[in-house]
Amino acid sequence: MPERLVVIGGDAAGMSAATNARRQLGPDRLEILAFERGNFTSYSACGIPYFVGDVIGDDVDRLIARTPEEFQDRSDIEVRIGHEVTEIDLEGRTVRVRNLATGAETREAFDQLILATGAVPKRPQLPGSDAHGIYGIQVLDDGIAVRDVLAKEEPQHAVIVGGGYIGLEMAEAFKLRGLQVSLVDMHEEPMATLDADMGELITDGLRDLGIDVYLNEAVTSFDTDRGKVSEVVTEHRSLRADIVVLGLGTQPNRELADMAGIPVGPSGGVMVDRRMRTKIEGVWAAGDCTEKYHRVSRRAVAFALGTHANKEGRIAGINIGGGYATFPGVVGTAATKVCGVEVARTGLKESEATEAGFEHLSVIVESTTRAGYYPGASPIKIKLVVEKRSGKLLGAQIVGREEAAKRIDALATALWNEMTVDEMLNLDLSYAPPYSPVWDPILIAARKAWSRVQETLSEC
Amino acid sequence: MPERLVVIGGDAAGMSAATNARRQLGPDRLEILAFERGNFTSYSACGIPYFVGDVIGDDVDRLIARTPEEFQDRSDIEVRIGHEVTEIDLEGRTVRVRNLATGAETREAFDQLILATGAVPKRPQLPGSDAHGIYGIQVLDDGIAVRDVLAKEEPQHAVIVGGGYIGLEMAEAFKLRGLQVSLVDMHEEPMATLDADMGELITDGLRDLGIDVYLNEAVTSFDTDRGKVSEVVTEHRSLRADIVVLGLGTQPNRELADMAGIPVGPSGGVMVDRRMRTKIEGVWAAGDCTEKYHRVSRRAVAFALGTHANKEGRIAGINIGGGYATFPGVVGTAATKVCGVEVARTGLKESEATEAGFEHLSVIVESTTRAGYYPGASPIKIKLVVEKRSGKLLGAQIVGREEAAKRIDALATALWNEMTVDEMLNLDLSYAPPYSPVWDPILIAARKAWSRVQETLSEC
Repeated sequence: MPERLVVIGGDAAGMSAATNARRQLGPDRLEILAFERGNFTSYSACGIPYFVGDVIGDDVDRLIARTPEEFQDRSDIEVRIGHEVTEIDLEGRTVRVRNLATGAETREAFDQLILATGAVPKRPQLPGSDAHGIYGIQVLDDGIAVRDVLAKEEPQHAVIVGGGYIGLEMAEAFKLRGLQVSLVDMHEEPMATLDADMGELITDGLRDLGIDVYLNEAVTSFDTDRGKVSEVVTEHRSLRADIVVLGLGTQPNRELADMAGIPVGPSGGVMVDRRMRTKIEGVWAAGDCTEKYHRVSRRAVAFALGTHANKEGRIAGINIGGGYATFPGVVGTAATKVCGVEVARTGLKESEATEAGFEHLSVIVESTTRAGYYPGASPIKIKLVVEKRSGKLLGAQIVGREEAAKRIDALATALWNEMTVDEMLNLDLSYAPPYSPVWDPILIAARKAWSRVQETLSEC
Repeated sequence: MPERLVVIGGDAAGMSAATNARRQLGPDRLEILAFERGNFTSYSACGIPYFVGDVIGDDVDRLIARTPEEFQDRSDIEVRIGHEVTEIDLEGRTVRVRNLATGAETREAFDQLILATGAVPKRPQLPGSDAHGIYGIQVLDDGIAVRDVLAKEEPQHAVIVGGGYIGLEMAEAFKLRGLQVSLVDMHEEPMATLDADMGELITDGLRDLGIDVYLNEAVTSFDTDRGKVSEVVTEHRSLRADIVVLGLGTQPNRELADMAGIPVGPSGGVMVDRRMRTKIEGVWAAGDCTEKYHRVSRRAVAFALGTHANKEGRIAGINIGGGYATFPGVVGTAATKVCGVEVARTGLKESEATEAGFEHLSVIVESTTRAGYYPGASPIKIKLVVEKRSGKLLGAQIVGREEAAKRIDALATALWNEMTVDEMLNLDLSYAPPYSPVWDPILIAARKAWSRVQETLSEC
């Protein structure tokens, strides 16, 4: 009789794990059963703002990499959508599952279990924060719900609370759909994963598009009208709100793990080792619900990002299937494009570097994405955070208009390899007038940082 | 009395050396005198095709970073343009200099000397190859000459001999100026710095633009009419030619070094150590005239590229000025954009890997530059060349349409750090729908290469 793998969560991490396990073991050796409480499998959550904003049209199927039927047909994986796992019984090696349509509950046995429950949007504990019309954007069903509201209720005024990635992307999406949009953020600049001195250009981009941006301002409550949100109240004003989106970031969805006693780390994510094993024999976890090893801070962190979910799912699946693969951790790379501004970061920003115990310095350079004389040369601003004395790169941030953000990958690769800015300033990066000045902006930044490191050393 | 530094060659390498030496030592300690046989200093040779093609307008000054007057005023560096150094007397520590306008010759003493004589286009030894109307494109004066010919002689038919970077860029430039353009290349595909299986898309791009491309075809002679080229004769045909550009690559300009007995390596470039010292005390060299250490093949190579020239010039200048800096070598990164096709490479192509003694395998993947559903997703093709058994990256090539080429920098950085494809496949590269699919094309390529490495190992 084959072993049975039960998968909790049918998006990137869970289904990557399932297909990779299947690739290792045929149906006679492994039965795979996946439960997804939503209505879709293997979709791009990152694509939701573009679906809401009509950037990619109204066909939600474009965001779906593989349907339950395709998993069945191609990989012999049974997926039950609309089924929520409500309890894990580690002793009895079963899960309790509720069919959300009928309410019927069953128990399903497992030999191997993988938790891929994802993340949930952070929700402020404020008066009215549970009102109708306040959306977190995490699963595809959220995107469909918001799109339905736009079509049916024709809201005029949208308020975004929190300028994280999803908040900014949804602000733009609503603007593209013709709404009057306000963004409230308690930080000095939106996108608090960057240092404030890099966030300014983002604020400019938002305002250029006609979005009202209120910074250094905390939301205090949500007014409601017959159970539905009507106003977002801040320290300084009250903003009319027919619809509200939370952009305060996410936290790992740990509920099932907590109930079952599967250990969760201080980051809030399920603790896993490099093979994606939890502390419980035969129980694995991958994706947004887990904590990740940050290679620069050497700490466990919780990041919700599809690229990690896919990698971790793959690794879990290979190991579940009897192979060997390990996840080497992350360096905190992320990117977005919002209101025509490209934004990317990797490693630690200044406050994170301080918190991790690094003595550091930082430099900012402004250059162009092409040779100055070449048509379409566009400004790019690069910040490096560097350890004093050693000159080791600790983090980098990029803000630009075009062909800017993806350059973070060279910096992420340098960071991964623990390069110093002295080593980096001679890196053999590509040069041709359509792609960079003869001194690539990254090299200019490294050169400037190395000068600063030397100055600092000579002051000691 | 200050020491005197004489600089031979007033472009990137020579003038970077001069300004960096000046930054270390004030005028009371160092006198700097530079000779440039052309009419310009510190210009972008890589920008010449865009100047000829009118992509950047007709103002040649846009290609010039700094004029002789600016060097004098800002850095106290005397530059004599139109002055050619014709001999180096190492014994007497002088150079002989000819004023090209007057023919007058002088001798100038030096304490330190830097050779920055650049490269010269390779010219085939064929009947007629010295005829008028056949241009190599290396210095800004070449670009001005060709632009003048276009304006005054109104040539109709241009033939490009050799599909190297400059050949392809000039083919496009002539086409943009309305000429009928033919390209003859003896290789299977143009751009022989790529493997042939990556060059196809370039040929398509050239043909889409209406350029006639003749491949696997050698030029045998040049017919002339009253001393001026009239036809390019190949193995299979004769092509009418009012103007011919050579795109056969370049070789280090070693003439002065040879005459003076300054050692030149097997690559044809002046031998330098990591501080840019030649074998002769007090004589330095930098830029296209020198050989460079290739970090992957571990051999000396001659590459003519502005980015190396600037870096080497900087390092030479710091050392000349009494500081300490070293050049760590190159990994062979290069990029261009031609006829709407973006091309980039780093490391070794297959034949180079074989030649360097590596047992290797290669993979090619096709993906997109953005998430498939995101507007503007454009095809990108990535090839990786990988050492068998170790899985170490040896080289990478990228061909695409938009936002493709600059991604080579992450691969160049991985190569620089001697990463294996197994390590690379979990690299924390940026992901967001406007920038890549959730599995970045580089990661897909690394994953595929790692599978191939594992298969190969299991066959052993």
